[in-house]
Amino acid sequence: MKLSAISKTEYLAMFQEYLERTLREGSFALEDAMLYATVDGGKRIRPMLVRLGALAVGDALCSDALALAYAVELVHSYSLVHDDLPAMDNDDYRRGKLSVHKKYGEANGVLTGDALLTEAARHLFKIAKGKGECFVNAAEEILTGAGKMVDGQVKDLAGCKTRDEYLEMYSQKTGALIVASMRAGARLAGADERALESVSAYARHLGLAFQLADDLLDDDGEPSIINVIGREETERLLAFETSEAVKCARLLKNADELVDFAEYLAARKN
Amino acid sequence: MKLSAISKTEYLAMFQEYLERTLREGSFALEDAMLYATVDGGKRIRPMLVRLGALAVGDALCSDALALAYAVELVHSYSLVHDDLPAMDNDDYRRGKLSVHKKYGEANGVLTGDALLTEAARHLFKIAKGKGECFVNAAEEILTGAGKMVDGQVKDLAGCKTRDEYLEMYSQKTGALIVASMRAGARLAGADERALESVSAYARHLGLAFQLADDLLDDDGEPSIINVIGREETERLLAFETSEAVKCARLLKNADELVDFAEYLAARKN
Repeated sequence: MKLSAISKTEYLAMFQEYLERTLREGSFALEDAMLYATVDGGKRIRPMLVRLGALAVGDALCSDALALAYAVELVHSYSLVHDDLPAMDNDDYRRGKLSVHKKYGEANGVLTGDALLTEAARHLFKIAKGKGECFVNAAEEILTGAGKMVDGQVKDLAGCKTRDEYLEMYSQKTGALIVASMRAGARLAGADERALESVSAYARHLGLAFQLADDLLDDDGEPSIINVIGREETERLLAFETSEAVKCARLLKNADELVDFAEYLAARKN
Repeated sequence: MKLSAISKTEYLAMFQEYLERTLREGSFALEDAMLYATVDGGKRIRPMLVRLGALAVGDALCSDALALAYAVELVHSYSLVHDDLPAMDNDDYRRGKLSVHKKYGEANGVLTGDALLTEAARHLFKIAKGKGECFVNAAEEILTGAGKMVDGQVKDLAGCKTRDEYLEMYSQKTGALIVASMRAGARLAGADERALESVSAYARHLGLAFQLADDLLDDDGEPSIINVIGREETERLLAFETSEAVKCARLLKNADELVDFAEYLAARKN
């Protein structure tokens, strides 16, 4: 079935089913922790962006999009599990429940992250067999984004002092996987370089807006760009990045949904 | 160039060059730590097994084998970096020098492992473009082995009590990536299922023998199968697994080198 034939809501329901079923089929030693880290959490922004990336340039098979969405959500989840570790952000809670390492122990926290990242890549190779170049290109986008995300994490731990340092770090730590999700969807739909660049431009603004909205929601004194430029300027920057994303959306197919998504992310309350 | 046209020594030199060059080209934030964890360490057993796996059933392009070898060595290296973390084995030294987290800090220890695993998968997708089914199949073997390795790590942390529990854990924690390396090489050379099974049988015995030899070399009271069955029985089991590997080798191409490798691993002093 093609993505264009199903609604956003149907896609999300299919994604949830795909995620749970595929993780259970893996018979992992850490199955419980892997499900705990992925199944009932999150806004599924990256899986949504895989779909939107494909529809922004054309269309693709829903089953292929779901495989990419599964991988990118696992990559995102592994990064949260490792982020929460005592050696990193040392967070006891995530999405209103105990973080993985608090619930399953610190060693299993490390290993659950490892298992999720490994499974993301394994699944992509499994699905890549018999597919054409487009799927392999799309899978490469996800791993490339995952690599940049680690670079961003390193910058975050090292600490940022200026507005530009924060924006550069955000573009990697948060933005890279958001851009990769859109590009993966677009690659799947066979986008050429020009279309890819338009998709990337939208996603870069979206990713930055998403992180700024996060900072404004979580403004609890933890280091963020708000400490450098203040709430008002952060709100102004969020509005600017959102409006830039909207402008980029107008150059793409399925523009109304892309506009809605950018406005939803900017206005969200969690 | 085909693998059959170059010697073992040439292959290892080419691997070393490939590893360093490719890691440096990545411009990773953690480049120093990634090089530290990979470049001057280890016996390169898994890269060797990629080559031997291909030659055991036929032949393959050296450049493709090197890409697989690079990925599997990065997977192996990431597992050591994470193994050494305080939450895991808490080892301050590895291969006679400070472990990654002791040298670069614990957060960077987590992230260096993540970066190595991510880069392994990213590189495989990059190289997979334009290659046939054989390369994708080979890459999938490596990620499948990496997944089983994590399962084995979980079993190791949970602790083993009986001979059979140790053997099962060893077959995953150590064996899975060794089997995967051989199978990846064999897949690259276009092995059919029957040839793959012969290669896997050799590698399973080899992997077990390798771990038993490790236990005998490192017998420092840390939990190992020696605590359960004693040194003498462990030595007997090592000799048995090595002789089984040699028997399996006789059914494969390039048998003499496979026999030599099994005997080298059993007799090694480090």
